[in-house]
Amino acid sequence: MKNEFYHYAPRVKRMTASIIREILKISSRPGLISFAGGLPSPDSFPLKEFERAVRDTVRLDGIRALQYTLTDGILPLRNYLCRWLSKQEIVVEPPNMLLTHGSQQALDLLGKIFLAPGDSVLVENPSYLGAIQCFNGYEAKYVTVPIDDRGLRIDKAEEKLKSHKVKFIYVVPTFHNPAGTTMDVPRRLNLIKLAKKIDVPIVEDDPYSLIRFKGNWVPSIYSLAKGKGVIYLSTFSKLLSPGIRLGYVLAEKEIIAKLVLAKQAADLQTNTFIQYAVYHYCQHGYLEKHIPTIIRDYAHKAGLMLAAMEEFFPKEVKWFEPQGGMFVWTILPEGLKASRVFQKSIEQNVAFVDGSVFFANGGGENTMRLNFTNSSDSDLRLGISRLGKVIKSFL
Amino acid sequence: MKNEFYHYAPRVKRMTASIIREILKISSRPGLISFAGGLPSPDSFPLKEFERAVRDTVRLDGIRALQYTLTDGILPLRNYLCRWLSKQEIVVEPPNMLLTHGSQQALDLLGKIFLAPGDSVLVENPSYLGAIQCFNGYEAKYVTVPIDDRGLRIDKAEEKLKSHKVKFIYVVPTFHNPAGTTMDVPRRLNLIKLAKKIDVPIVEDDPYSLIRFKGNWVPSIYSLAKGKGVIYLSTFSKLLSPGIRLGYVLAEKEIIAKLVLAKQAADLQTNTFIQYAVYHYCQHGYLEKHIPTIIRDYAHKAGLMLAAMEEFFPKEVKWFEPQGGMFVWTILPEGLKASRVFQKSIEQNVAFVDGSVFFANGGGENTMRLNFTNSSDSDLRLGISRLGKVIKSFL
Repeated sequence: MKNEFYHYAPRVKRMTASIIREILKISSRPGLISFAGGLPSPDSFPLKEFERAVRDTVRLDGIRALQYTLTDGILPLRNYLCRWLSKQEIVVEPPNMLLTHGSQQALDLLGKIFLAPGDSVLVENPSYLGAIQCFNGYEAKYVTVPIDDRGLRIDKAEEKLKSHKVKFIYVVPTFHNPAGTTMDVPRRLNLIKLAKKIDVPIVEDDPYSLIRFKGNWVPSIYSLAKGKGVIYLSTFSKLLSPGIRLGYVLAEKEIIAKLVLAKQAADLQTNTFIQYAVYHYCQHGYLEKHIPTIIRDYAHKAGLMLAAMEEFFPKEVKWFEPQGGMFVWTILPEGLKASRVFQKSIEQNVAFVDGSVFFANGGGENTMRLNFTNSSDSDLRLGISRLGKVIKSFL
Repeated sequence: MKNEFYHYAPRVKRMTASIIREILKISSRPGLISFAGGLPSPDSFPLKEFERAVRDTVRLDGIRALQYTLTDGILPLRNYLCRWLSKQEIVVEPPNMLLTHGSQQALDLLGKIFLAPGDSVLVENPSYLGAIQCFNGYEAKYVTVPIDDRGLRIDKAEEKLKSHKVKFIYVVPTFHNPAGTTMDVPRRLNLIKLAKKIDVPIVEDDPYSLIRFKGNWVPSIYSLAKGKGVIYLSTFSKLLSPGIRLGYVLAEKEIIAKLVLAKQAADLQTNTFIQYAVYHYCQHGYLEKHIPTIIRDYAHKAGLMLAAMEEFFPKEVKWFEPQGGMFVWTILPEGLKASRVFQKSIEQNVAFVDGSVFFANGGGENTMRLNFTNSSDSDLRLGISRLGKVIKSFL
């Protein structure tokens, strides 16, 4: 018998469980090799350095770190981040910045200030699942544009935008999640031009760009546009810890003011204690010192996964070789559904994400997202060899 | 020239700055005596005990405390809270609980799952500003019902509900914010009956009930209803620290499942590190040990403020004597606007909150909310004496 006592808002129909969060639930299953999550390598967490930062917080900030603070975020940390971002050619002042509970919260606040039911967002096809789920909660529609190894197909975007109105353009241009690809500079410049022409902002989600283990640095869309018309999101999740839930948004002051209002209503402010702890962590130079460690670790793990894929996957399977980030995007032969592969591979204790979940309007049934950062060296090889066998059994 | 580049969702028109958060910005002004915030006394923060809990987290949980975790919250802390709540006659299991970034986030998630634009909420008049702001973001309307010294006027609620449909009933029944009053048991039982009759849930916001310094304990609406049809919110903000942003919701499993989906989209999960730290804090028995300290401190400060009000306020001013919580609700003579008093008192370096902001549909211009927890003993007396002079100057 269905409980009919509770009467929900229509948007609830659009809220569905994240398959990735569901897989996280089984990830503690003994023996499971999971290529599913977007979990950073636990070896990459700078526990000792973070502990020192936490001690400094207690010693130097004391009760201030336990009290309420401003919604925008504590000034010392925003100041530090502004100086730090200038090394990435991002010129920004504290009033252009809001600290959030992870960049997921920034997505949610953006949805809240921009999206009315039925509004459309232009997204890459595939796109980040967390963003799609978040915008679903605002009853958004999607205009999907394919990507290739140079990122978003601007020509296709232009075509679609002739007949579709969107509220903003959402992209993960560097080490795309799930596709691993990076948008090149000419396309970034063309995207800025296109967005300006149709008069909509670009939302640039950039959690991974500092984790580059191959190829040359590419400036952010935000820096190329000098911050005009671009909203930039980043996070400490991949550089320090995802468990501390700390991210930030950069945008024009007008947008930040609106986001601050939305954040007041959402949770008043970001965790004061964690803000001070991360500030001390940064002040000690740990953030900059730690990044090369992560890069070395991830380069190593990506190399192992790619080598194993070469060795164990049948030649009919294709993939994008990432230059950074955490994922290898894999394309099965046309007609072979990743969901069928998953059913069999989970019996072999190997998990991954069925790529179709990243396609906002459906499709991509023959794609898989493989994460290489959260498995041991031996599990990377063992998991891929098992997965290779499972795939071969379907061919 | 107005920037017309950004096109916001209609709900943005309803988002306004919290006057209380605005006042927080000036609260560091030298010499300011602020009765405005809802800031706990900084003397009440158990810094040393929290430091020990943080050290335990690093030592015992290590990298687990920095990694992603389940959206619902870590099980050890939910288990602890269930045992702890049973001492308050609240019978609840972990699947009935979701940990949130403060109870403000719980309000936001409830707004998200229940409120479509134009839906109504029954609120006390006055009501908690953070809730009103939060529901405003979902384009809610309000059915307001007056309160007296025994809490919500159930008779008036019944009357209003004959002609108005609401999605839920939102109350702060114990040590009300801003009014300081507590709903008695007969009214709690009648409210449960009424809500059942009209088939809507009650949202019980309970941040203060453990900070009782006078009178007898009153069971929560949640416990009286045995959890049926009631959603209960509470927080560590007033018992440990507001800066750590940790709260929780209790509800029927069906509701928790919906809230979990909304939370995944909002910020994935609550801070892992803080959850473990608070778990160790609780395990050491610090939570229970610390509450009497807060009560003693607040009883003392409330006493000082009330005595100063007796001494310095003209007899035309009335107030509710609170038995717990953080506020004295004060009523100026009819026709004297608190906003005019504020203008003059801020010149004297004394801040408070104009009570009209707590009236969801307007009104209450002659009311003020005075907080006694965040001022020194001498400032309490000095501030009230100045405020008394300012009020007298209008009579």
